Amino acid sequence: MVFAVGLMSGTSLDGIDAALVEIEGTGTKTKVKLVEFITYPFTKKTIDKIKDVFSIKTSSVEKICSLNFELGYLFGNAVKEVCKKADFSIKDLNFVASHGQTIYHLPSPEKSQFASTLQIGESAIICEMTKTTVISDFRTRDMALNGQGAPIVPYSEFVLYQDTNRIRLLQNIGGIGNITIIPPNAKLENVVAFDTGPGNMIINALCEKFYEQKYDKDGQHAANGKVNENLLKEMMDHPFIRKKYPKTTGREEFGSEYTETLLEKWQDKIEPKDFVATATMFTAKSIVENAKPFIDDQTDFIIGGGGSYNKTLVRMIQKQIPNVLVKIQEEVGFSSEAKEAIAMVILGNQTLHHLPSNVPNATGADKPAILGKITYYD
Amino acid sequence: MVFAVGLMSGTSLDGIDAALVEIEGTGTKTKVKLVEFITYPFTKKTIDKIKDVFSIKTSSVEKICSLNFELGYLFGNAVKEVCKKADFSIKDLNFVASHGQTIYHLPSPEKSQFASTLQIGESAIICEMTKTTVISDFRTRDMALNGQGAPIVPYSEFVLYQDTNRIRLLQNIGGIGNITIIPPNAKLENVVAFDTGPGNMIINALCEKFYEQKYDKDGQHAANGKVNENLLKEMMDHPFIRKKYPKTTGREEFGSEYTETLLEKWQDKIEPKDFVATATMFTAKSIVENAKPFIDDQTDFIIGGGGSYNKTLVRMIQKQIPNVLVKIQEEVGFSSEAKEAIAMVILGNQTLHHLPSNVPNATGADKPAILGKITYYD
Repeated sequence: MVFAVGLMSGTSLDGIDAALVEIEGTGTKTKVKLVEFITYPFTKKTIDKIKDVFSIKTSSVEKICSLNFELGYLFGNAVKEVCKKADFSIKDLNFVASHGQTIYHLPSPEKSQFASTLQIGESAIICEMTKTTVISDFRTRDMALNGQGAPIVPYSEFVLYQDTNRIRLLQNIGGIGNITIIPPNAKLENVVAFDTGPGNMIINALCEKFYEQKYDKDGQHAANGKVNENLLKEMMDHPFIRKKYPKTTGREEFGSEYTETLLEKWQDKIEPKDFVATATMFTAKSIVENAKPFIDDQTDFIIGGGGSYNKTLVRMIQKQIPNVLVKIQEEVGFSSEAKEAIAMVILGNQTLHHLPSNVPNATGADKPAILGKITYYD
Repeated sequence: MVFAVGLMSGTSLDGIDAALVEIEGTGTKTKVKLVEFITYPFTKKTIDKIKDVFSIKTSSVEKICSLNFELGYLFGNAVKEVCKKADFSIKDLNFVASHGQTIYHLPSPEKSQFASTLQIGESAIICEMTKTTVISDFRTRDMALNGQGAPIVPYSEFVLYQDTNRIRLLQNIGGIGNITIIPPNAKLENVVAFDTGPGNMIINALCEKFYEQKYDKDGQHAANGKVNENLLKEMMDHPFIRKKYPKTTGREEFGSEYTETLLEKWQDKIEPKDFVATATMFTAKSIVENAKPFIDDQTDFIIGGGGSYNKTLVRMIQKQIPNVLVKIQEEVGFSSEAKEAIAMVILGNQTLHHLPSNVPNATGADKPAILGKITYYD
């Protein structure tokens, strides 16, 4: 039996997701069982340090050098914590698969720059703390093949969710929204995946600003508000929404600068709860617009990620596609919170077996490739 | 037969050293043969970009993200070039071992920072360009064990230079000077290594400033100048010189800011050639002061690195230790230029075999460990 911990730290900076997983087999024969899951929280100080290195203005080589190691220690702690919670001896761990914290993603750079991506959270530190082999840096190889290095979860979704009869559509709503469409009996080359636009990123930024809350719990603020159609139209006019796939986006397009610009223009005209409602509808509508060409009434539309707990957001999506079965990931049998961390274990397992795990149709890469780097403990 | 290319890009930014090496065995039974060597030059533009990310002020997350990939392409080109020069088919290459470009090294950080180091030159890019397994990031694991992550070459020196009768002292003079002392019949735990202080770093900065030359060719400027004893004393008073080993230094202590400060104070009082002569004597004297406790007249004092071509520097060293046999690395049978790139192959070979290659006595690490991360091509 092989046990592994998958680590994911997303753009929303909620903390480090750590999933202790039992895994066997490889490729389409992979079977996984979630043993335990935790989110190891970041302190306010750590969040500030990460935000510092997100920004061109406040980042520096010294901060990035230091934070790479600091996050390594936190990732190592997250592994220890999830094992402890499961009463599982860390000595029996076979590997750790760590996504790291993306601090920059530049898939379509300006002329003097190179297409690139940067994740930090030093694997050598995790390796030494856990005395286990660590696989890390899953996005760079795909970009070396002219892919966008994102999305990263479709391979694991293909392995775990494919069905013989029904279209399985997986909509993850984290900071960013991303979709994976798996036709019935699909081969890897039939899987399509791309970012749909913002997920919770704008909603969270508004809740922070208006209510000093990290997110809109259960979608309550949005439920109390009213969608402003003019603002919604302006948001939907963002060129990313109707861009053809493969496409990826991030904090660079929908981060704090984007929200700040919206606020400057609209803050005096719209009530906070209406602002949140409109941002929520923007996320819902951008998802549905992007999903529509791929779905029929034989589709399972499965929503995961933090956004799946936002009831208003889920209701807004369902209302626009009344004939499609909209489900929450938990209803299908997988933990929504743990999904990306579990995906890392599946990717790391492939890497250890020298097997590929990117989805060229999703990332735009020239071909499948072994992702990630291996730091062997012994 | 195993063929590999080792890549090194040092603090002096001369370019990428690429050594095509035939290697067999592991550990003390390692045998290497240098097949071909090139220095793949950096353009002025690339040098400026690297210098930009060295500096806290001018660096940014975007520049580092992009340059990591850009250097990956240049490292990949260097591999192709050295194979081409040797008329060696890149398909027959078994692996590439890449040190990367150090852009920051923080072994003894201030309170809010973490001990850390950062090398760039994305291995996934090298991997895809050369269609070969790449081993990279050799310094981080040692730092995870409370080592300084430097020096990095002593393991290879131990393997290649140990002797049954004589002390082998290896003094590398790159941007920084570093020494390795291998007692007769040494075991790994008897090997001592540390940085002695600046190598060519100050000399080169002065030649750039006074003569618009990258370095003091053959030590000619120094030969024409006269050592200023007051300036020399001030330089020798730098606390690093008499610090106890293990110790490492870098651009942070002896880089452009250090030289600028010296120039401000002394420029009007000393002629350029005397300034260069004094800086050269400083390098010589700091090396000898650090070496003295370890040598006797049964010692081979072997000088390597770019500084070994500076005849004035070598002469200054010999003059201070008249009873010791001072040799240049080429006289012992190894290319001085290629030494560090060859060392990377030895380290990478250890990593591929899951074997350690740090020298705890040199770095201060708690114990030996497998260094580096492996990016498998297939």
